[in-house]
Amino acid sequence: MAFDLIIRGGTLATAADVYKADIAIRDGRIVQIGLDLGEAARVIDASGKYVLPGGIDSHVHIAQASGDGIQMADDFASGTLSALFGGNTMVLPFCLPAKGQSLRAALQEYHNLAEGACYTDVSFHVIIPDTTDQILGQEIPALVADGYTSFKVFMTYEGLRLNDAQILATMDAAQGAGALIMVHCENEDVIRFLVDRAERNGDLVPAAHARTRPVSAEREATHRAMALAEVADVPVVIVHVSNREAMEEISRARARGSRVVGETCPQYLVLTADDLEAMDWSGAKFVCSPPPRTTADQEACWEGIRMGIFDLVSSDHCPFVYDDPKGKLNPKGRTSFRHVPNGIPGVETRLPILFSEGVSKGRIDLSRFVALTATNQAKTYGLYPRKGTIAIGSDADLTIWDPEAERIIRHADLHDGSDYSPYEGFAVTGWPVTVILRGTVMVENEQLCGAQGAGAYVSRGLPRIG
Amino acid sequence: MAFDLIIRGGTLATAADVYKADIAIRDGRIVQIGLDLGEAARVIDASGKYVLPGGIDSHVHIAQASGDGIQMADDFASGTLSALFGGNTMVLPFCLPAKGQSLRAALQEYHNLAEGACYTDVSFHVIIPDTTDQILGQEIPALVADGYTSFKVFMTYEGLRLNDAQILATMDAAQGAGALIMVHCENEDVIRFLVDRAERNGDLVPAAHARTRPVSAEREATHRAMALAEVADVPVVIVHVSNREAMEEISRARARGSRVVGETCPQYLVLTADDLEAMDWSGAKFVCSPPPRTTADQEACWEGIRMGIFDLVSSDHCPFVYDDPKGKLNPKGRTSFRHVPNGIPGVETRLPILFSEGVSKGRIDLSRFVALTATNQAKTYGLYPRKGTIAIGSDADLTIWDPEAERIIRHADLHDGSDYSPYEGFAVTGWPVTVILRGTVMVENEQLCGAQGAGAYVSRGLPRIG
Amino acid sequence: MAFDLIIRGGTLATAADVYKADIAIRDGRIVQIGLDLGEAARVIDASGKYVLPGGIDSHVHIAQASGDGIQMADDFASGTLSALFGGNTMVLPFCLPAKGQSLRAALQEYHNLAEGACYTDVSFHVIIPDTTDQILGQEIPALVADGYTSFKVFMTYEGLRLNDAQILATMDAAQGAGALIMVHCENEDVIRFLVDRAERNGDLVPAAHARTRPVSAEREATHRAMALAEVADVPVVIVHVSNREAMEEISRARARGSRVVGETCPQYLVLTADDLEAMDWSGAKFVCSPPPRTTADQEACWEGIRMGIFDLVSSDHCPFVYDDPKGKLNPKGRTSFRHVPNGIPGVETRLPILFSEGVSKGRIDLSRFVALTATNQAKTYGLYPRKGTIAIGSDADLTIWDPEAERIIRHADLHDGSDYSPYEGFAVTGWPVTVILRGTVMVENEQLCGAQGAGAYVSRGLPRIG
Amino acid sequence: MAFDLIIRGGTLATAADVYKADIAIRDGRIVQIGLDLGEAARVIDASGKYVLPGGIDSHVHIAQASGDGIQMADDFASGTLSALFGGNTMVLPFCLPAKGQSLRAALQEYHNLAEGACYTDVSFHVIIPDTTDQILGQEIPALVADGYTSFKVFMTYEGLRLNDAQILATMDAAQGAGALIMVHCENEDVIRFLVDRAERNGDLVPAAHARTRPVSAEREATHRAMALAEVADVPVVIVHVSNREAMEEISRARARGSRVVGETCPQYLVLTADDLEAMDWSGAKFVCSPPPRTTADQEACWEGIRMGIFDLVSSDHCPFVYDDPKGKLNPKGRTSFRHVPNGIPGVETRLPILFSEGVSKGRIDLSRFVALTATNQAKTYGLYPRKGTIAIGSDADLTIWDPEAERIIRHADLHDGSDYSPYEGFAVTGWPVTVILRGTVMVENEQLCGAQGAGAYVSRGLPRIG
Repeated sequence: MAFDLIIRGGTLATAADVYKADIAIRDGRIVQIGLDLGEAARVIDASGKYVLPGGIDSHVHIAQASGDGIQMADDFASGTLSALFGGNTMVLPFCLPAKGQSLRAALQEYHNLAEGACYTDVSFHVIIPDTTDQILGQEIPALVADGYTSFKVFMTYEGLRLNDAQILATMDAAQGAGALIMVHCENEDVIRFLVDRAERNGDLVPAAHARTRPVSAEREATHRAMALAEVADVPVVIVHVSNREAMEEISRARARGSRVVGETCPQYLVLTADDLEAMDWSGAKFVCSPPPRTTADQEACWEGIRMGIFDLVSSDHCPFVYDDPKGKLNPKGRTSFRHVPNGIPGVETRLPILFSEGVSKGRIDLSRFVALTATNQAKTYGLYPRKGTIAIGSDADLTIWDPEAERIIRHADLHDGSDYSPYEGFAVTGWPVTVILRGTVMVENEQLCGAQGAGAYVSRGLPRIG
Repeated sequence: MAFDLIIRGGTLATAADVYKADIAIRDGRIVQIGLDLGEAARVIDASGKYVLPGGIDSHVHIAQASGDGIQMADDFASGTLSALFGGNTMVLPFCLPAKGQSLRAALQEYHNLAEGACYTDVSFHVIIPDTTDQILGQEIPALVADGYTSFKVFMTYEGLRLNDAQILATMDAAQGAGALIMVHCENEDVIRFLVDRAERNGDLVPAAHARTRPVSAEREATHRAMALAEVADVPVVIVHVSNREAMEEISRARARGSRVVGETCPQYLVLTADDLEAMDWSGAKFVCSPPPRTTADQEACWEGIRMGIFDLVSSDHCPFVYDDPKGKLNPKGRTSFRHVPNGIPGVETRLPILFSEGVSKGRIDLSRFVALTATNQAKTYGLYPRKGTIAIGSDADLTIWDPEAERIIRHADLHDGSDYSPYEGFAVTGWPVTVILRGTVMVENEQLCGAQGAGAYVSRGLPRIG
Repeated sequence: MAFDLIIRGGTLATAADVYKADIAIRDGRIVQIGLDLGEAARVIDASGKYVLPGGIDSHVHIAQASGDGIQMADDFASGTLSALFGGNTMVLPFCLPAKGQSLRAALQEYHNLAEGACYTDVSFHVIIPDTTDQILGQEIPALVADGYTSFKVFMTYEGLRLNDAQILATMDAAQGAGALIMVHCENEDVIRFLVDRAERNGDLVPAAHARTRPVSAEREATHRAMALAEVADVPVVIVHVSNREAMEEISRARARGSRVVGETCPQYLVLTADDLEAMDWSGAKFVCSPPPRTTADQEACWEGIRMGIFDLVSSDHCPFVYDDPKGKLNPKGRTSFRHVPNGIPGVETRLPILFSEGVSKGRIDLSRFVALTATNQAKTYGLYPRKGTIAIGSDADLTIWDPEAERIIRHADLHDGSDYSPYEGFAVTGWPVTVILRGTVMVENEQLCGAQGAGAYVSRGLPRIG
Repeated sequence: MAFDLIIRGGTLATAADVYKADIAIRDGRIVQIGLDLGEAARVIDASGKYVLPGGIDSHVHIAQASGDGIQMADDFASGTLSALFGGNTMVLPFCLPAKGQSLRAALQEYHNLAEGACYTDVSFHVIIPDTTDQILGQEIPALVADGYTSFKVFMTYEGLRLNDAQILATMDAAQGAGALIMVHCENEDVIRFLVDRAERNGDLVPAAHARTRPVSAEREATHRAMALAEVADVPVVIVHVSNREAMEEISRARARGSRVVGETCPQYLVLTADDLEAMDWSGAKFVCSPPPRTTADQEACWEGIRMGIFDLVSSDHCPFVYDDPKGKLNPKGRTSFRHVPNGIPGVETRLPILFSEGVSKGRIDLSRFVALTATNQAKTYGLYPRKGTIAIGSDADLTIWDPEAERIIRHADLHDGSDYSPYEGFAVTGWPVTVILRGTVMVENEQLCGAQGAGAYVSRGLPRIG
């Protein structure tokens, strides 16, 4: 037998091309693409289907520590299983070190949690909680050398945010090592000012979350993060952009020649701040940061996707159980939106929503979908060409899509650890039916057939930014 | 023998991917990509080389009628031979019908000229010289149905320019048929006003050409063309953009959601208006429209290329002999810049200059080079997926590049019909050494081995615009 | 007696200052401003009132010829009487020469009509209907020398619009003479294209007027007019700007250093396109060009006023009787919006609406109101310092405002020749109660006391543009 | 005698008007403006001269504490004498409280220093060094009630800069009290990062000062300050804007409806960063923050002045002796640019430079000059209508200008306490020859005739922002 597996009869898509061809796989890698490829131990018929690179979701939170007794709803098993069913073959969760902890030690904890538990491949971004000489001068260069090539800084969240000097120092260390910086851009001081005022005014409902994190706080921080990156001469990813004003800042920075990559998320394409307005506390189900905005901002995000201002669409999967004292409805969260944990689940619904609203509705073509969800993700984060495309020598990470399948999103059908989906009832056209990880069929016809632990850790190279 | 030809050992690039693989060709098409592809009648070793889709140059003028006894320097033989040696496997010249002539009849004349003469494949854009009911109501739909799917309108050149009503009517006809419109954006009235004034002031030298076609005339026409296209709801290509202000108009239009494709050319990346300033009349060698601008505008054009505002880099090859009464130095041209024919040769130097200044100098990566010069060209003009990429089922149009080759551009080494190159003496790194057209090796190691007439006419489908 | 008249006890405002002072007038001019000014033949008590420069309305149409049997609703008597009661002491109507007619001859006709008829001072802009050598080379310079220093060109209206070459030639002639150019910026070809389509589709109601004159047609023409003016190096007034996009073009042009003055009108501050949507044909009452837009555009126009992008607020008074075969409901107008004459009355309501919505509601201060409605009008059109301010030596053109007066706009109370007001029922706070023209009390406590014919023609100097 | 003083025969200018009139003064105030005003105890002939409101310079540093043994070159005597000879009748220095000191106590120290020493009127802005409850909750409201209605925050200078939370809290306190906030916009962390790097690299010369305070640091902080002000809903003055990018941020904020006032200074109109490049250390003479930029930025600042983006031109007078161990050449300053005190003298040269470069060269008209230097200054800082204009009831603060006088700026002729002028040798046309403070002739024909101590402290009202 020449090959382990052949995917036959499908329409293959890369970030550039769409064409009919068979794909031959050996030892977990793609070895031939073409017609009449010969024989294989196993053949999957993909007639009438799309064969796409497995989705890479570079923005997920799994098993991350939250203070105050709050617990994230997913561990690596449920989080990667959910990702897998959503058409993904790889996720990049964040490693959040405690203050004072070495980055390496924190990474080890995440490795321990992930080891043997995963249904998709994983790799870790490292959040920079502090800027000691140890971290900047020694750990960052050493970690980059070891394949941890992206670091995230927060401009918001008390206890986590860094000030500008710290961000610059981090960027400088990253620049020296060839790594990139991801930035959560919201001005913490603005938010705290408005949250304090809202609480003083007794405005405590979940919808106040959106009102106290205004567009101006995101636009300002976006402008600032890019200015700092220009000074440090480092590539940056502006994550989860939610609105036109921030998008325009990114567009202007790119026109100035800045190396900026923009990311947006499904919640900014199909939700709005109105979703937080439920009279009971169920608006908490939609509390994430930045908050969803307006339908005009949705349209702006689509334009950003179409015109290439956004190169990434990720999920920012950050799941909590809603009806749980360790989740959205924790005792303090019931008293004020300030204590509602920020984040919504979405790793399983990202691809179907973008496929349906984007490809099926004609807003973007199939190659752009692949670019946004796999190829650019891989290039940005140093996984390319091993991951993110269909190419000779690349890992055989493939998702077979049925473009005609119609589904209604129901949390009951999903696989994450939360108890709700913010997209409950949302109708989509197009669904991932079969998912192959390094040549192993993990999901076939929407049924799990792969084993837990099949997902492995992947060390990464340096980012490739336009 | 399984295959006619295998290209072995090279590094293949598409608009998305770069990887090592062999390519197998049968009956002029790519049938397999991969490792260990088996045997072929012929094998070409591409070790250490890049194997790229053959260049497509969608903006060339060949054997086009010029008034006043001026003669274009290239016929289809010399024009396509020059293109071929420049790494191209296809060019799209313009068919310029005479006023009153049917578009079909004019096309027939160009077909007659091209038939049997070409070294690359060709297809024709049709310039719309007039907007009779016959042309708009009958010819355009019929031509689109027959595979002529792009039409060009001029906002400048007396006798050729259309007014806004005519452009709108043309756009409307194109929109109904699914075709696209290319627009040469310069405000003719502004130019004529300034040319008349310059002549009155005795400012007759070639450099006056640049002074009388200011950025504001191009920026204005660019804004207008896109506004008209928004009204007609038709995709447009803004050809040969030369400067920052026009680029910013395009960027803003795209942010408004307009379906606009921007094109720039090597002359706007490496020449400036100063090149027209020679004390003798040799500045005429650089007279083209719009004129080269400033080094700051060059930088803006590079930013447009990098950030995706420009999707096409074409040559606008429009060759005249310099030292010739039928060329740049025609008797009237010697008296005033107004009579110097507009246009410069460049079909053979486009790819080496962009490769060298772009890829070799690190401004763009290899995939972006392929996108700009082949894949986007094919998608924009309805040639994709037959042309413009390396994919199963696509034509085996391939160019093998030596990325290390160092050359000095000398007109003596080029193959066009002109007697000079505006890039004389320009040093480049990277050169196309072997060119394969639908499986036939036309140039091997920089030596012609293909036959005249190997190039064929290609009928086109509808454009694919983002 | 030292003085003819003293205005005592009021609060005086100029474009810079607001302070309490008395004003002494002799021979129709202001001769002293201050306290304890001595005795006068007559004293008017203005305690508790504002004393402002008489309004100048630089954009009104009176007794202008319309084709097709349509008749403008105002002659110079009714038009200037209406202006007077609206707080104005001067209006600048347009002189529209017939094609082939000399500008001078046309002006003479308007002089004849105005002579002895007016209640306010008047001066004339001259519309350029054609660009013969006679007009450009001889008439324009001669007219400027004689005090006609502003010329208007239209980019819309068949039969009236000039093409770009004609506009440039006109601008060039104006530039040479020191005059300025006013431009009605809408792209006629776009509008005709859309009107033709609407009629083909049977979309004939008045609301189709707004749909067929889109923002893009105005934005495009605005950009173009300013580009032409940059080339000709002449100051331009962009009249009656209706929306954010056109406003932003003006803002950008000013940032490029262009000498551009922006004008907006009350209809763009308080009306919207929805006002044209009446189910019966009364939407015709709101048909003007450009049409009112959206509430977001209203807000943009206010921002333009506040931030100094718009220096003029004029009425574009262009009155037709609604229920009249020679007016809005002419026989053809009842069949299609295309034949509804464009224009609405507004010379009497401009100042109260701007005062109420601007000053009373706190959007602008009193000095800005004076600047927009009088001082900038006078400076822009060469009337300053004789008109437009309260200064020693200036004409004693003064309007006394009761800032507390509350009125409901009712056409029954107005003085124009139309039979309706587009602002019927609009409530305002602040009203002009007394109007003084060159020292003569024309209206006192809202009662006419001046004589017809008191208004005189005023020759003008060259424009003063920032 | 009816009046104390009449200024006769001059051409008077306000921010709106220019006209010939006499001005009558009684008890230090303007009581009549006009012709034939009667008799006065004294008459000054201003024939052929301009009579303008006395200059107000809202941005000067006098007798301000500097650490490290550095001493400011001017006390209130020399500083106000220099201002007076430069055509000013009022200056607004900053009161800089020490950390921990009450604002009130610090003000008392400045009052003590100013008392009896001044040649012009003075009032104080208060710098907010800290944001204790005492300062925000009690001192700011109490000070506003007492006539200190403007507070300044710094985003740069270690020890002085406030973080965003502190700035917001200060803005909130100001907003509640009706005061405004001035912001020095440069990102301290960026600057420190670059200064540290420059020092590590041994780049210690004065010119490194400009290189380490890049435009991006000013643009970023400008954007951020305005975003914070939008959140707090408070008017802000962005002081000493030096370049196009920051100017464009202000323009964009105003288009969003923000209440932002822009200020620029002569150093950004006539100096560039090249002035710091002297081979010896004399480049230190031009060290100020932000640093002068490029000639293109100068042009941008002029455009900002013309189009109304900048409403204020102030001096930022901050004088140090050059050749002095307590000044520019202090022992540490000789070792590194970091220790060169920031600031240059300019209170005496501001008006002549702006008059000459602006009015005499035709860039702005006389009314705009008055607005920028007196009227807007008074309105912005709550001094209007008592100060800043020529109006009945206003203080008789007047400067008589000889528009034809030609002078070369020489420090030997100036009156400040420094030992150099950054404008040494600069030629100007137009000079203030006579200065009148509240009716008292302080300078007559360039000779001092007023007494020290004639200048008084002026309590202020609330700001008036467009």
